[in-house]
This record gives sequence, C-alpha cells and structure tokens, in this order.
Amino acid sequence: MSERKTLDERQQMTDLERLRHSTAHVMATAILRLWPDAQFAYGPPLENGFYYDFDMKHRITPDDFEKIEAEMRKVAKENQRFERKVISREEAKALAESGRLGGLSERPGNPSKFKLDLIDKIPEGEEISCFQNGDFIDLCAGPHVGSTAKTKHSKLMSVSSSFYMGDESKGQLQRLYGTAFPTKEELDQHLVRLEEAKKRDHRRLGRELHLFHIDEAVGQGLILWKPKGALVRRALQDFITQELDKQGYSQVFTPHIGKLDLYRTSGHFPYYQESQYPPIPERDILEKLADEDTSCATLVNGLNEGTYEGYMLKPMNCPHHIKIFASEHRSYRDLPVRLAEFGTVYRWEQSGELGGMTRVRGFTQDDAHLFCTPDQVAKELIGCLSLVKTVLTTLGMHDYRVRVGLRDPDDSKFTGDPEKWDQAEAACRAAAATLDVPFTEEAGEAAFYGPKIDFVVKDVIGRDWQLGTVQVDYVLPERFNLSYIGTDNAQHRPVMIHRAPFGSLERFTGLLIEHFEGKFPTWLAPEQVRVLPISDKTLEAAEEIVAKLANAGVRVAIDRSPDKIGAKIRNTRLERVPYMLVLGAREVEEGTVSVRHRDREELATMSVDQFITEITEEIKNRCL
Amino acid sequence: MSERKTLDERQQMTDLERLRHSTAHVMATAILRLWPDAQFAYGPPLENGFYYDFDMKHRITPDDFEKIEAEMRKVAKENQRFERKVISREEAKALAESGRLGGLSERPGNPSKFKLDLIDKIPEGEEISCFQNGDFIDLCAGPHVGSTAKTKHSKLMSVSSSFYMGDESKGQLQRLYGTAFPTKEELDQHLVRLEEAKKRDHRRLGRELHLFHIDEAVGQGLILWKPKGALVRRALQDFITQELDKQGYSQVFTPHIGKLDLYRTSGHFPYYQESQYPPIPERDILEKLADEDTSCATLVNGLNEGTYEGYMLKPMNCPHHIKIFASEHRSYRDLPVRLAEFGTVYRWEQSGELGGMTRVRGFTQDDAHLFCTPDQVAKELIGCLSLVKTVLTTLGMHDYRVRVGLRDPDDSKFTGDPEKWDQAEAACRAAAATLDVPFTEEAGEAAFYGPKIDFVVKDVIGRDWQLGTVQVDYVLPERFNLSYIGTDNAQHRPVMIHRAPFGSLERFTGLLIEHFEGKFPTWLAPEQVRVLPISDKTLEAAEEIVAKLANAGVRVAIDRSPDKIGAKIRNTRLERVPYMLVLGAREVEEGTVSVRHRDREELATMSVDQFITEITEEIKNRCL
Repeated sequence: MSERKTLDERQQMTDLERLRHSTAHVMATAILRLWPDAQFAYGPPLENGFYYDFDMKHRITPDDFEKIEAEMRKVAKENQRFERKVISREEAKALAESGRLGGLSERPGNPSKFKLDLIDKIPEGEEISCFQNGDFIDLCAGPHVGSTAKTKHSKLMSVSSSFYMGDESKGQLQRLYGTAFPTKEELDQHLVRLEEAKKRDHRRLGRELHLFHIDEAVGQGLILWKPKGALVRRALQDFITQELDKQGYSQVFTPHIGKLDLYRTSGHFPYYQESQYPPIPERDILEKLADEDTSCATLVNGLNEGTYEGYMLKPMNCPHHIKIFASEHRSYRDLPVRLAEFGTVYRWEQSGELGGMTRVRGFTQDDAHLFCTPDQVAKELIGCLSLVKTVLTTLGMHDYRVRVGLRDPDDSKFTGDPEKWDQAEAACRAAAATLDVPFTEEAGEAAFYGPKIDFVVKDVIGRDWQLGTVQVDYVLPERFNLSYIGTDNAQHRPVMIHRAPFGSLERFTGLLIEHFEGKFPTWLAPEQVRVLPISDKTLEAAEEIVAKLANAGVRVAIDRSPDKIGAKIRNTRLERVPYMLVLGAREVEEGTVSVRHRDREELATMSVDQFITEITEEIKNRCL
Repeated sequence: MSERKTLDERQQMTDLERLRHSTAHVMATAILRLWPDAQFAYGPPLENGFYYDFDMKHRITPDDFEKIEAEMRKVAKENQRFERKVISREEAKALAESGRLGGLSERPGNPSKFKLDLIDKIPEGEEISCFQNGDFIDLCAGPHVGSTAKTKHSKLMSVSSSFYMGDESKGQLQRLYGTAFPTKEELDQHLVRLEEAKKRDHRRLGRELHLFHIDEAVGQGLILWKPKGALVRRALQDFITQELDKQGYSQVFTPHIGKLDLYRTSGHFPYYQESQYPPIPERDILEKLADEDTSCATLVNGLNEGTYEGYMLKPMNCPHHIKIFASEHRSYRDLPVRLAEFGTVYRWEQSGELGGMTRVRGFTQDDAHLFCTPDQVAKELIGCLSLVKTVLTTLGMHDYRVRVGLRDPDDSKFTGDPEKWDQAEAACRAAAATLDVPFTEEAGEAAFYGPKIDFVVKDVIGRDWQLGTVQVDYVLPERFNLSYIGTDNAQHRPVMIHRAPFGSLERFTGLLIEHFEGKFPTWLAPEQVRVLPISDKTLEAAEEIVAKLANAGVRVAIDRSPDKIGAKIRNTRLERVPYMLVLGAREVEEGTVSVRHRDREELATMSVDQFITEITEEIKNRCL
C-alpha cells in the first residue's frame, strides 16, 4: 500500500520506483510465509530502495535477513502476476475485517487494523483498488511491474523501528528497508557504492581524523571545528578570499542577529519561521509580560504580528549586506558593489534530519551579494559562474552539470515585470553558455524573486550534490527601497545577485572529506608533512628539519614515539598525512631526507631544501 | 547635595572630587542669581567634572553658558566660605518647606520639592547636614573646599535633560555639566584634550572613513564592519594569526549559541543573565506553552530553573573550547593544548551605555584558552604576556602599565585550595616580572576563579584603556570535570588560562581609530596607495601601475575624477591614505612616480619597482 497520492503523482512513479514498490509487496509476501501474524501498514519506494512498516510478534534482526531473502527469491521464481482489482468500500472493509487484506489468507481474530484505518482515509467517491500476487492481497493504488520475476535483484538493507503515521501514541512498528534494481550489475554497483560511501563517511572520518565534533551539550546540528578541521576551513577560506580579492569583492563582517523588523521587511519573518530558531524577545518586553503574568501565546502572537520587538539569529546574510549598501549614497559610478562574507547563519532543521556536517543548524556561507545596475547583471553573472568553476576545478570536481531555473509564465508566484524577467533569464542563459558544460533550462524552477543558476556536482562515487548557486533578485532591492543615482541624475533601483560557490563551508567540507576519503590534497591537508626519525639518534636532526619546514609555512609535525619506523609510517598513512620524511643516520649524514607519499609507492631521496621547494610549489599551486 | 553615601565613601572623596562638588554649589548659586525659581535636585562630582540636576521655567541653552560662567566667576571672587551646619530633621524640613534649601532666600509658594524628598530618604537617626556659601544653603553631606575662591578654574560643558532619580514618571529636569581644576594650566590641558578627543572621535571618523556602520534596523550596539573597516580587522586578525601560529596555538571555529545547560554548568546562567540577551526557548517547548496558554512567567522561571531547555547567544567562548578539549582523551604529552578563536560573543549592555565600537552588544574576542598541567602554568603565562607585549609594541602603544590581581585572603569569594592560589599568584608575579615594565599587585582584584594580569594602556591623548587580560582558572576545569592522564597513569585536573590580547576587536579598533586619528600605519590602512593621474593623458599609465601594485599585494586605488591634482591630493589626505603616487607626463616618460606621504612634506621620485620594494617591506614589517 503506497501513501495516498493523486493519479498524476502515481503516473509519475518512475520505472525504478515501480519495481521497488513491487519488491516491497514481495517482501511482505515472504514475511507472511514466515510469520503469518504480520500486519502491514505502509510501504513506499524511496530514492535508494523501499521499506515496509509492519507489526508482528517476532522482532526482526539482521540475522533474519537471509531467511527472508531466500523466501523472496522463491516468490520471484514463482513468477506471480500482479493483478489489479477495483473493489467497493464495503468489499475492502470486509477483506480487512477478515484479516485478508495485507495477508495470504483470512486470519480470524487478526483483522487488518492498519488497512482498516487506511480505507477510512480514502476520500468518499474515490476509486479503491487492491493488488494481488499469488496469495498476497494488498490494498494498493499501484502501479506495479508485470510479475514478481522482475524483483529478483533485490536485497534487504536494514531494520529499524517506526510509528504508524509517525505518531508515537499509536505504538511502535518494525520498518524493514530493502532495495531492488532491474539487473544484477546495477544492484552490485549500488552495493559497492554503499560500501564505498561507508568507507568515506565523513562522520566517521571526521571523528577519526579529529576534524570536527558535535556535542549534545552545545546543541544538535552545531559544528565545533576542531584544530585540524579548522585548518582545512582556513585553507578553503584563504583560497576563496584570494579569488574574491582578484575579482574586486569587498569582505565585510556582520553580527549574527538582527531585529525582527529587519526580517519582516525582507519577508523572512514570520512567514518562514518554521525553518528558524525561535526569536529572542526584547529583554524589557519579556520582563514586562512575565511580571504581568501574560500568556506565552500573547508573546508569540505579538512577535509574529509586530506588536513586540525582538531579535532573530540570522537565517541569511542578505539584510545585513543590504544595510551596508544603504549606509552610503551610491552613484552608478560606485556600482557594482560586491559585498562578501564568511557569514554564519542559523536555521532550524528537524532533529531527525540532522547528520554530521551535511545537515546542520548552524553553517557558514561563503556568501556574497552584488548590487549592480540592470545593465551590469549579465557581466556580473559571468563573473560569479567563473568563480564557481574555478572553485570546483581547483578541487578536482570536473563532473558537474548546470541548471538554469526559469519562471513558469503561467505561475503567478513569479511576480514582477515580465520584461525584467526576460532580460534576467537571457542574462542567465548567456552566462551559463560561457561555462562550456551542457546546461538545462528548467521552467518553474526560478526563485520567486528571479531566475537562478545551480551547479550539481557528482562526487567520485556518483552521488549528486547541489552546490554553488547564483540568483538574480529584483524583490529585496524593492522591499528595502534601495537606490543609486544614475547617469541621468535620477534615482534608480539596483539589482541584487546572491551567490555562494561552496554554499556552506560545513556541508562542502563534509563532501570534501567523502570525496577525498580524508586524503586531502596537500594544500588542504591539516598536517602536510610528518618527519619520522628512525630512532632517538636522529631526533635532533628531525627537529631541525621541522623548524625549517615550519619556517617555510609548511604544516609539519614530528613522530617522537618510541615506535618502529614501520609503525610510524602506518600511523601516518592512517592519519592521511600526504608526506612522510624518514630520517635515518645515513640521511642525516648526507643532509637528505627519504620522502614517501601517502598514496604512492615510489620513494625519493633529496635534500631538505629541494623538498621544501617542491612542496611549497605544490601548496602554492593548490595541486590535487 | 551629593547622593547618599556612607561616611566611609564620603571620606574617600578625592581632592579633585571635592573641588568639583564645591563648584557644583557655585554653579547653583550663579543659576539662582539669574533664575531664582530654580529647584535643585542632585549634583555629584564625576570622573571628568560634575553636574547638577534642576527644574526651572527657563530652558538653558549653550548660549546661556557665558552669562552663568560670568556669575560663577563673581561668586568665586567673593571668596565665600563653605560652612557646614548640622540640623535636625525638623529644621531641615522647615527650611525645605520655605524654599530656603537649595535657594538664596526663602521662596514662598516654591518649596524645595526635591530636597523634601531627599530628606525623607535619609535614614532615621542619621546626622543631617547642610552647607552654606554666601546666601546659598544646600542640603549636603559634603565635604567641600574651604572657599568659593578655589573654584575659579571651571567651565560649563554641556546641558541635557534628565529625570529625578532616573525615574521618567517624575518629570523632566535639566542637567548642566561642568568641570573644574585646581589650576588654569590643568583646566586648559583638559580642554585641549577634549578638543583632541573630539577630533579623534571614532564614531565620527568611522562614519567619515566608511569603516563601520550601526543600523537601528539591525540592532543597537551591533557593528556592521564596512569594507574598509573589515580590511583593518583582517589585517589585525592576520597579524594575530601569524603570532598564534608561531606560538603553537590551534585555531578553532565554534557556533554562536549553546544550550542553556552548558551555561548552567559553567555558572553563567541564570546568575549572570542580566548581562546577556534573553534565552531562545526550544521550539517545541515554546509551542507547547503557547498552545496551553501558559504564562510567560512560567516560561522564564522554567528556563531559569532548568525545567525547560533552550539556547543562549554565547556570552563567552570558554564552554565551547572546553567541549573541544573534552572531545578527546588527553595525556600529559598532549598538553598544553592552546585553542584560539576569533569568537564573536553577545552581551546585553544597557542601551544608555552603548556608543560606537567601544560599548557594544556583539563583539569578537581574539580569544584563547590554554589547557595545561599545573607545572606548565608559569611558562604559559610568560608566553601569553609576551604575546600581549608584541601586540602592543607593534601598534606603537608603549605607554602601559600592568596590574596583577591577587586574592584577598580574608574574602570568602576566592574559593579553592590556598596552595593552588599561592602557586598561581607566584606564577603571575614571575610572569609579570619578565615584562620589564613596573607592575602593581592588587589584592582582592583577582577573578573569583584565579589570579589575573591586566594591561592598562595610555593612548596618545592620555586616556587609560584596559586591554589585554590573562587569567588563571581552576574552577571551570572542575565544573566541566576535565582531565588528562599524567605520567603516573592517573587522571589529573588541567588548569585553564583565558587570554585575549586585544580583548575585543571592535573596542580595540575603536581605540586604534582614535589613537591614530584614522591615520593607520600602512599595514593597517584599508587603502594603502592612491594613484593620482594629473590628467586623462596619464590615466592609462596609472592603470598599469595600479595593476602592478595590486599584483604585489598592495591595497591600491586610482582617482579617475576630473579634479585638478591639488584637489586630488587634498581628498586623498582627507581619507588618510598613506601614499599618493602623482603621475604626470614627465613621470610616465621617465618610468617613475612622484611619491607623497600623507604625513610628510618631502617628495620623492622613484621607479615603480623601487616604490613596490619599499612599501611591501614596510607592510611586511608592520612599520608604524
């Protein structure tokens, strides 16, 4: 039984989703053969597979997976056809009462309790259908594949607990996850990719490599960048800063809070407050309301309606940058004004959605806002895209596609002057065309305030990440009544461009950890070189080399442990340090070092100065 | 009449305060001669002068100052003796009823309303005294100088409005400010210093030089660092970062909020909440309380008592750094761990106390916390002080003194093991002694958690600024149960050192603006060089020079205006740009530039390359 969807949505189910949905029915069939008391609730396809929620006495563990999978293979071999039947509401209810719905046979005394509830949820007058494969009949809107034979390339993935309709009060269910593909090759590829993703999981690597820490005592979704992670971030920020300086951006610093009125003007409060931390009321208002024993509802409503003032953790940097733009009289000669900030913003994500650095509640955008004349939009867009491209190329992310989000002319949410829209969309298309990568145009995918350009990057294991975004905005300049004096000496409205190549430093760093499997290129590596004296006898010489490297700006450490050299090399590799300098008596005598690289087999022996020349060049050029 | 003070406090009044307090009586005498209806309220001495609050029909404006000062000079010339008389409560009330108190004579129908109230505020049984000079009798605890003759070096400064006892409901008063000194020289010096301070006022310079902006729509006391101010801040941060790297610090980044429980553990909430923004309640708690129509008092109390959870804008960075320290197992071999952050913190200052960058609600500390063994404290303190010294010396602040704050052994607020205190105090003294500047030891001035060392810097116009602070802390490691494994394989408690050389980047930048009168040394100047083509004919050559300088990392701009060269030079000086390169046909022909410095008269002509060599050297060495 899939969630209630409109016919349109059902027809939009992809072939793969259809296959997975059918596999969920096959899984249910297999479970019922093993545990006939199982009562099924709800089982939809997912991006990477499917699940089915059910209630039964036996608690499934991963030890049961082989048995269930064997039974599923049997069902597939039986080549059962999926047959659709339209039934009346009364027939459906009778089938559920008898335990037949979501079962292999009637089950006296064990009615299909969840199906009964789901039938009640189907609007009066709507067609009710069920699907049958072999003995298994399920209330289901479909669609399905032709027969169970198609589901043979499937695998169970994990089991967890869940609640019926997500409602804790309705008791705990079991949720069994699986996946399915049309061919064995595709399934195997998927499993390899999963294994690879697990190996690269930035949450584990972040812990093992001491990059970041999340502490419940500080708050969920809030990243503490530990010293090594902070070095990666600093290298990224320095890189971006260098590019910003080249492109004539001005960096600014703004506070992390702003008055509610600021966000009332921008339109972010109270309308988007669900995705924000609750506001901080003004101290005197809160004290007064507490003294007067006023209710919290009055406080909340008053803040929403603007009767009471307060502050908000900033969910974005635009209003602050706008206030900097507006703090001076601007003439067309001053434009474009390009304000950039590594601005930390705070948004409320549901706790269930939080994970490592990629879904967080506080993140730092490599943000910028460009204020320009309408004539400058086209050129500035090209500059923004070229910056994103530089960033991706430097980080070895060559596999990306570009989406140009346009308005849907039939959709009234895209407000504003059609002529301006045409002009901006043409500018976006022209800018995207300069990138030498294919781009798609997607009608209806614009922001409501203007068209946008997104980069979708494929990482080494084939996953899509939406990164760098560039957006044209006609609305905020209007709302904040921004102006500049034109060549005609009259006031004009500037256009704003929002852009962030990384998007969020947290998310991007999470991606980089996975992309590189923690093996950052030298310029990004928190520790770039480790000097490994073979014994205490070369320790002093090792210290001198460390000093020399540090003096040249290289991030270097020394292994002073009493370990054997083999163990020292293994540990250094494990910590993903790019270069190891092994120092024995012979090297000290000859004034050389024996250079090993984390990822390469060959060794090289060279003078310390030669090594410094090579590595500083590698760092300066941000080699991969 | 001075505010009610204990006898002890009164006896502590300095000679200067006594003089100024007497001058306030002389001012009151003069005002009464001019406007006999004046009713005086309260008139204390201040750090730089005095004021007196009063109510009368005539509204005083600065145009009246000369007239009042002339009258004050007469009163001084009359050499009236200040005579103290002890009176009974009844006598005092009778004098006030008749209008005689705070007057030159009885004033039927105009009783001394404020004095009546002040008499009521004197505790039963306490001595009541009044002071008389000439005809003027005032309710006053004293003390005073011998005669009005001593008050002749005085001056009126400004007039504003105030409220009786700060209470708005009691109607508006006039507040007249003045100052007085024992000699004409001292008065003149003070006035020159004030004039100088006005010229250097960072609020005005910050606006004129486009360094920062404060916007009511964002919030009071919240600094928006504009592009030019942000360049100053970046130069300061780069400087500090370089020193931190040298000294083996690790930079970290932490969020700007933390759970209330974190601050319950640290002891900052709810006890110090008066100096913090109100907390952000957890979303689901706020929603539940609003739904249930619970009162705000319950919310506030629940947050205070820990029944409800929430977040706080971080008032300091220590708990976050502690959580980073605690995120790994630490051994004595890992210590000291030195965690540094440019951490922006938020504190609630009363709106009346806010001003420019020096009294703000959000500020960025150049903060660090050192976690070390007890044996390492002495050495680490020396490192911290040497860093502060480097910072001050680099910025040309050579005139500073050092205070070592010790415990008062008789005061129970200084908790903890006396032996640890002795050890830490000895370490602070020894560290301070390495500075080669005299230091004072101040008993009772320690933080409750450990001794501290403060730097008090005198700026060019003689004002004291408390900057760089270094504090030893035994309490937070205890509260957060921090530990490391010692050489004995047992768990030990580390000691923490808190330190911030600038204190706050906002306040320090405000001070720097005033210290340098906006004329930052080249390495700090937002714009370091401006190229001034004499006419359009040399514009192209000027652009080439700009590109060359920018390429060498110099912050350079060009004046493309059609102005005459004289105007261009004037504007550039006004904007405090250190170097101007004037480019005429002759310079272009010869491949040279004519170099002018903002503060110097002499000119130099040299090749562009020569100039680049010189200025990059000046920037690199952070010359003053």
